[in-house]
Amino acid sequence: MTTISFIGLGTMGAPMALNLLRSGFDVVGYNRSPARVAKFVAAGGRGALSVAEAVTDSDVVITMLPDSPDVTSVYTGPDGVIANTRPGSLLIDMSTIRPDVARAVADTAAGRGLRFLDAPVSGGEQGAKDGSLAIMVGSSEADFAAALPVLSEVGATIVHVGRVGSGQTVKAANQLIVAGTIQLVAEALTFLRAHGVEVEKALEVIGGGLAGSAVLRSKGPSMRARDFTPGFRVSLHHKDLGIFNDAAREAGVVAPLAANVSYLVGALKAQGCGHLDHSALLLLVEQLSGIDAREVGTETTGVMNS
Amino acid sequence: MTTISFIGLGTMGAPMALNLLRSGFDVVGYNRSPARVAKFVAAGGRGALSVAEAVTDSDVVITMLPDSPDVTSVYTGPDGVIANTRPGSLLIDMSTIRPDVARAVADTAAGRGLRFLDAPVSGGEQGAKDGSLAIMVGSSEADFAAALPVLSEVGATIVHVGRVGSGQTVKAANQLIVAGTIQLVAEALTFLRAHGVEVEKALEVIGGGLAGSAVLRSKGPSMRARDFTPGFRVSLHHKDLGIFNDAAREAGVVAPLAANVSYLVGALKAQGCGHLDHSALLLLVEQLSGIDAREVGTETTGVMNS
Repeated sequence: MTTISFIGLGTMGAPMALNLLRSGFDVVGYNRSPARVAKFVAAGGRGALSVAEAVTDSDVVITMLPDSPDVTSVYTGPDGVIANTRPGSLLIDMSTIRPDVARAVADTAAGRGLRFLDAPVSGGEQGAKDGSLAIMVGSSEADFAAALPVLSEVGATIVHVGRVGSGQTVKAANQLIVAGTIQLVAEALTFLRAHGVEVEKALEVIGGGLAGSAVLRSKGPSMRARDFTPGFRVSLHHKDLGIFNDAAREAGVVAPLAANVSYLVGALKAQGCGHLDHSALLLLVEQLSGIDAREVGTETTGVMNS
Repeated sequence: MTTISFIGLGTMGAPMALNLLRSGFDVVGYNRSPARVAKFVAAGGRGALSVAEAVTDSDVVITMLPDSPDVTSVYTGPDGVIANTRPGSLLIDMSTIRPDVARAVADTAAGRGLRFLDAPVSGGEQGAKDGSLAIMVGSSEADFAAALPVLSEVGATIVHVGRVGSGQTVKAANQLIVAGTIQLVAEALTFLRAHGVEVEKALEVIGGGLAGSAVLRSKGPSMRARDFTPGFRVSLHHKDLGIFNDAAREAGVVAPLAANVSYLVGALKAQGCGHLDHSALLLLVEQLSGIDAREVGTETTGVMNS
């Protein structure tokens, strides 16, 4: 029986670990806060008190962590994954981190005969619960094939996009397009309202043509209703755009809209809106335009600090 | 029998006028260049030698012209539509122009007992041929109802979005989202290529999630193939973004991505690429990033001047 160590039982990690458990894998869960481990044990999983204990007997290690430094710290060092896993093990990082950090960890792992894949996801908490995530995998062909039986229990679309680090590169590009499209919709929405147009009908006709997008479809109604309950938090998107811009600079790619939308997301976070859904970019456009939310005639769920 | 004057038999206007003809309307066509009128007459329509002659006996006047000054000049003045049409006639401008110009023409028309609607379209040349255009109408409810039997012969989705000028406002917002999304896809594509990712697979997985859009679906493959045959020309999109930015300034709306993508489209036009499809924004991102198109390993259809 394949034993999987699952490190990082947060909003995304916990439901993913449960899906693996339900699929019949032997799953050992670890999280920095013991309460999350206890919850996983109560649901039928095994628990561990440290990273080293979690990975000692595993065939596959999966990590789902907030940011690049967390991944580096969990994988490297004497108490980390790499020092304590059996040679030949498959290490799958599903966090969204910097591609260069993914490659550095992969190099360290290779030095101890371990196989590392970067496999960030899209689809959010609901996708994690449903097992319907899209997974972008960077690895060798052989490692991808080895990981597929595990990944297919947590995701529905699993695509091998290139060598190690490529999964993170694709995820970064994905996050640019999402943030940029939200900002475009926020600007269009503010513009339409300011001109007294019937916004619902306008978005309907716009959405049916070349301007149509998943953002307009899934975020348009909540943006019109000014509901900024996450969803995906501004603070996480801020981190992801930093990854895009750093990786773009590294490759010599000049991306003007990426720079622009980054500073807008940064401003939103700086003003205390990091906890809101990323569609709260609408609030920033209104603020820049001197529009009082009350004038729009609807309540706002989760306001800017004022 | 309803007589329709159709002024502006260009790429969009000609197939629209033909569709009205096929639907059984009596259609009088006029265009500045007589060759286009002759072509319309050869196809079974009636022709006129001037705007005044074209509109004298009509119930409905439709205009499909390149820009705001063209609309002003065709409608106003002693030889224009307004001075020469029978009171009570319905005037429908389907050009993409400034909302304030649409309102000014409407005011002049109202002074002579004429009803004016702005009804810009999306869907391009193919939509014009198929009669499948989306039409955004700004007018009173009564005028919208009066125009519907005519509009439904040239479009499939016909939406009343508000008072006169609102159609243009919605079209401007539409054009912002389209240009912005193309630019985001161009930046993402350049980023993915620079990092050596498998681009086709990457776009597939990106397109299936929150980053998915009609632009990615319909322009992604031709952008990957570097085919910039229009489609919709950079020079027209440049005009449309000018309309958005002017109307945004007028309403006090601050739209950072609109400003940003406008200058990018402006640069593309300034460098002699006005005749290419708007997806040629990819060329500008490559140029800014110092990427030689030859390094990408594919031919480019329609190159920048160099």
